[in-house]
Parts: sequence; structure tokens; C-alpha cells
Amino acid sequence: MGCNARTPISMLTHALIGDEGRTIELSWEGGARARFHAMWLRDNALDDKTRSAGNGQRLITILDIPADTRIGSAMIKGETLEVTFVPEGKIVSFPAEWLVVHAYDRQEDRQPGWTGNDIRRWTKATMQNSVPRADYTEASRDGNVLRQWLGAVQTYGFAVMDGLPAEPGALCKVADLFGYIRETNYGRWFEVRAEVNPNNLAYTNLGLQAHTDNPYRDPVPTLQILACIENTVEGGESSVVDGFAIAAALREEDPEGFRLLSTHPARFEYAGSSGVRLQSKRPMIELGPDGELICIRFNNRSLAPTVDVPFADMDAYYKAYRRFAELIEAPSFEVTFKLEAGQSFIVDNTRVMHARKAFSGSGKRWLQGCYADKDGLLSTLAAIEHQFKEAAE
Amino acid sequence: MGCNARTPISMLTHALIGDEGRTIELSWEGGARARFHAMWLRDNALDDKTRSAGNGQRLITILDIPADTRIGSAMIKGETLEVTFVPEGKIVSFPAEWLVVHAYDRQEDRQPGWTGNDIRRWTKATMQNSVPRADYTEASRDGNVLRQWLGAVQTYGFAVMDGLPAEPGALCKVADLFGYIRETNYGRWFEVRAEVNPNNLAYTNLGLQAHTDNPYRDPVPTLQILACIENTVEGGESSVVDGFAIAAALREEDPEGFRLLSTHPARFEYAGSSGVRLQSKRPMIELGPDGELICIRFNNRSLAPTVDVPFADMDAYYKAYRRFAELIEAPSFEVTFKLEAGQSFIVDNTRVMHARKAFSGSGKRWLQGCYADKDGLLSTLAAIEHQFKEAAE
Repeated sequence: MGCNARTPISMLTHALIGDEGRTIELSWEGGARARFHAMWLRDNALDDKTRSAGNGQRLITILDIPADTRIGSAMIKGETLEVTFVPEGKIVSFPAEWLVVHAYDRQEDRQPGWTGNDIRRWTKATMQNSVPRADYTEASRDGNVLRQWLGAVQTYGFAVMDGLPAEPGALCKVADLFGYIRETNYGRWFEVRAEVNPNNLAYTNLGLQAHTDNPYRDPVPTLQILACIENTVEGGESSVVDGFAIAAALREEDPEGFRLLSTHPARFEYAGSSGVRLQSKRPMIELGPDGELICIRFNNRSLAPTVDVPFADMDAYYKAYRRFAELIEAPSFEVTFKLEAGQSFIVDNTRVMHARKAFSGSGKRWLQGCYADKDGLLSTLAAIEHQFKEAAE
Repeated sequence: MGCNARTPISMLTHALIGDEGRTIELSWEGGARARFHAMWLRDNALDDKTRSAGNGQRLITILDIPADTRIGSAMIKGETLEVTFVPEGKIVSFPAEWLVVHAYDRQEDRQPGWTGNDIRRWTKATMQNSVPRADYTEASRDGNVLRQWLGAVQTYGFAVMDGLPAEPGALCKVADLFGYIRETNYGRWFEVRAEVNPNNLAYTNLGLQAHTDNPYRDPVPTLQILACIENTVEGGESSVVDGFAIAAALREEDPEGFRLLSTHPARFEYAGSSGVRLQSKRPMIELGPDGELICIRFNNRSLAPTVDVPFADMDAYYKAYRRFAELIEAPSFEVTFKLEAGQSFIVDNTRVMHARKAFSGSGKRWLQGCYADKDGLLSTLAAIEHQFKEAAE
């Protein structure tokens, strides 16, 4: 765009050194204010002795920085703040805008289970008629189509992709758009179809309760892709449920139940094939240390006996688990679609549960599944967004 | 062994139904006692209508169990407890030994950062002369050798493997022994050698501070394998540091510092190559919801500005980070070995940090690295142990 109009955050108005140089208080045009520590500023200095100009990696360790680092002087120079650190005598410039973006001096009153701005929760009412989808050929040719599709996975935790070849292994093409397949004991990909003598409940024609996959694996696969090669049965629709919306609903109606499911680990296990004995210990609702909702695990089939909840809490824990399961089964949260040959969908397996409706034995339902990871997906999305932004500028 | 001598825990002495059938209190020979809830017992019933006889997966959901489930009657029959659940009228047998193994009615007074019985912390003094190692050919032929080597990774978080071909890609053979390579933007494996114009600090001849790999990736790779193809330089030794021992040391001398590093997320990022913008938000010391120490992340190079620590705590947070780094650098925690051609080592990248000593430009240091995951390793270990146990019985 070539537009360089000054934004309020690009201009500092005041810089006040405090606490004998250990902190500095900054004010921006427009009224923003934030304090920083000398040590934090020094550690995050942007000069090419501190960070590699090539890849941004930090070239020094915390032990290279004097423990008694202070700000000797500071000066606002145009759109930057110039800081002299003592005892090093090192001068570093910080863009005013970078400072406000990285300010940590704020009050945040967030309740456990909060989610960031990238996440939008959904229900049947808000999602059934606006399922995010893209055509494979378009997504592979057009960065903007791919960006929107990846962005939907980030924002909503699932998306449909049409236009794949209806053939074995085609689902890998979806993963190739953004990242890498996570190979497991089930292979690089696996079959999901009715079989006699099933070794895993996914291979039957019963319905399957909404669940996340492989909670018995740690790290859990963070993405799952399911692609359809043939689907000529009666029924057999796929459905998805937003685990983050369910968790928010549970917290709303039963904060103590939410607390119980998020502060006690569950156990999951799978030992269905020879040579495989997978076990994990993770909560059904996982929060980060700052209370951010980061992962849902829900799978009745592989849930092992819960042994990490005190006796006194077990009754309430089970009530919360039951209520969580009821909400997951509630039709108001469920978005349903039937995959046709050549269609696939991806779920964020840390958030969105998927289910399958029962189907009749006539006809054939042949899907394939594979796992991949969110690091690659979010990295590719960020890189495309960065590229578009640079092109726009 | 064919020995069926009764152990105290195989025999129940008393079963007392309480709280109108909602709980039951059991006593075993030898004095053990534990209470269970009717709902917990019903959900974990072992009969073939509740769990698949083939693969142990649960065939019912929590919603299939009446919310008012109680114990109608209970009877000790030999080495089992027979429970009748109402209103279902369902009779289920529980082995006395299974019950005591899965008892959750216990008092546990564990401080944050505790680790389980599978983990033994180590220092230079306890480990330098007893580095766990195995020969590749033996480990691939002898289940007992493999079991011990995998067990060392579980217990100590690292192990050396000798006797690989000194050729590109040979490190994959190590992963093939127990699981699957985690492919990333660095490939299925990657080169670690001195290069001009390095894009990543791992490719220089400077020393590298002890670190965990790829903390900017979520999920983080839980295992790393480094294999040597040539190492004829002066220096260039590898070293490993037990992050769990460091965390325990920090907690011992500065509980508040330990609390700060484990209750606030750090941020990590890497954007060194085109199309790659990896970011994560995870603490340096990660605890499970029950306070179990589950992951260490430490990497000065990719640590991004810390923006999730309140201003009032930042000074103390940085002091704790500095002290953590000092302990990681302390020679008393460091175990050193020099990889020769055909040697490799594996680290649990959620626990053990690795470092490289500086080396001179003469000669050549050519290593390759790859990532894999602990789910496969621990599953293979558990399956071998199960197989050995069955054979012994």
C-alpha cells in the first residue's frame, strides 16, 4: 500500500526512567502507557549482536547479560526509543510500535478456560449453513484460497476440502498443502471401513459418539484428516462438535464441574494390537498455566480408570463428566455433513470432536484417515499471511 | 514361573456398602483399605458387554449408565468381588488385585514438580560413568537389550547407541526400533555440520548452550536422535543435562522461582527459512494439572519476548530464569561424551537438554538429527515388558 501515515502507537511522547534505572515508563500518542524492565529490554534487544540479522535467533544467553543491568539513559528519537544499558554501555534502539505490541504491563482479568482472539466458538445455529470449505485444486494453486482454508482451521477447528481424487492415499495431498503427516502404529494413513471382526470400534457400522482421536497418545495428534473414497451407504454422515464451545457451556452452567475436569488428569489407554500398549495421563479439559483453554480430550472407548481424582471429589467429577458428555451429544452443538467420494475434512484434534452416524450394511463406506500436526499448519498460515502483508506494503 | 501363591492383595476380607449403595469400602488381607464409588465401578466394569474382549475398548458411554446407579449387593467370592448394580440389575466381577491396583482413595501430599517412579534424576556424579548404551545390532535382535535401552530412555531421558553404519540416514534405524520419525520442515532428518552463512545456530563451530530442541513447535518433538557420520575435529563433544534434576534443584533453593517459571507461559518462535513461521506459548517448566513435572523447554536462541508475566512479577521471573540457566550450565549436572562415527544418542526432548562443545575448524564434524515421539517408544517398551511377563508366567 505504501502508506506510511503515522499511527498513534508509532510515536512515543514520554520516557521516564524509574527504580534507579531498573524500569522505564513509556507513553504513546493516543494515551497508551506501559512500563518495562531494563533486563527484559536488554534480553530482547533487536540489534545484530543480540539477534541474528538472518533468522532472528538470539545470539546471547541470559548469562551473557550482567545481572545488575540498568538503563543509564533513554531518548525518544523519531519513531524509536534509544536506550543505553549500563554497565555494558550498550546502545539499543526499539521501535515504538514494537514496544507497544510487546508490552506486558497490563491488567488481565480472565477466567480459567479463556481463549484468544484467533478462536471463534460455534454451534449448530452459527455453523451448519456456513461450513468452511475449499476445493483442493484451487487451494493448491491460489495462496489466498489456502490462507482462508487454513485460517478456518485456526479459527473454527475444522474445514471441509472438496475435489480430491477418490483414491487411496489422496488424503496425504491435503497434509502436503501445509505440513507433515504424523506416522503412527496405524501407518501413515489408515482405513476406516466396515470390517468383520473389528479390532477397533471405528471399523463397524454402528454410530460413534463424538470424540477426539487417540487421547492415549502423548503427544496427541493435533490434526486429523478424514477423506472419502466411497460412501454409498444409507446414513454414515460425519458430524463435528466444537469442544471449546462445549467447555464454555459447561463452565457457564457448572463452574465447579469445569474446574474438576480441568484440574485432574484422566487416563487413556489402547492395547488393541500386538506390540502396541499406548497410555497417557492428561485432563479432559486442558488449560495452560495462565488458564488458557488448550486441549480437549474425550473418548469413552479409550478412557481408562480414573485414578487421579481424590475420593472426596470423585462423585462430583463423574457428574461433571456426565454433563460434559450430555452437552457433547446435544443436537444444538452438532454440525453434520455427508462426505461424498473425493471429499475430506480436517479437524483440530485438540478442540473439535468428530462423530459418525450409524449406517446400513448395503452399499459401501470407505474412508481413510491420517494425522498431522498444528505446528506446520499454523506456521504455513503465518508465512502466507506475512507474505501477503509484505506484498501489500 | 507358574507360581500362583496368593499375594495379600489378591484376597479381600471385607466389603461394606455405604451411602445407600453409592460407595463401597473394601479391605484386603495385609491391611490395605480403599473406598470406591458405585458409578466408578460400573463405568470401569470388565465384562464383555462393557469392554471389548478383543481390545479392551469400552463399548458403552457414560450416558448408557443410569445416573442413579448404586450397588445393590456385593459379595467376596474367592479372589474377586462380585457386585450387583441397580437399577440395571447387572452383576460384575472385579478381581481383588485389579481393585487395589486401581484404588484412588488415598492421601497424597506431593509438592508441585513431583515425578513418578519411572523417573530417576541424575547428575554428573551419578551418571558420567554409567551412561546407558546398547549396540544397534544387539538391540535389533535381542528384545531384552532393546527393553533395557528403551527403559533407560524412560528412566533417565537419554541413552547412547553404538554400531550404526556411519552413513546418511542411518539414524532412522534407531527410530525404527521403537516408533516413527516426526517429519518437520527440517525434513525426515537434517544435517548438523559447520556451514558458511548458517541459517540456524546449530550449524556453526561455536559451542551451543544446553537446550531442548524446537520449543517453538507445539506439539514439541518429544524425542531427538543425533547420529555421527564423522567427527574428526578437536572438541565437539556432546553433553546432556537432566532438566528434571535442574528443576528439582531450582525448586529446592528457590521455590518461588520454580513457581514463577512453571505458572507463566514463555513464548518461542522461529522464522529462519522462507515459508516457516513457527510460534508457541508454553512454560519453561510445565506441570500437569496435578503438579507432575511433564516438560522442560529451554532455548535462549528461540525464546521470544516474554509477554505473559505480569509487570509486578517480571523482575523475579527473570531472576528465576537466570538461576535456571546457571544451574543448567553448572558442570556438576553435565554428562559429556564424544560421538564417534557410527555412534548416536537419543534424548527425551521434554526432559534432557543437550549441548555441544566448541570445536576447531580442522577435521570434520558431521552429525545428522531427527525427531520422533515418546508415545511409540513407551508403547513398544510396555509391549515388550508385557510379553516378557506373559512368557515368565
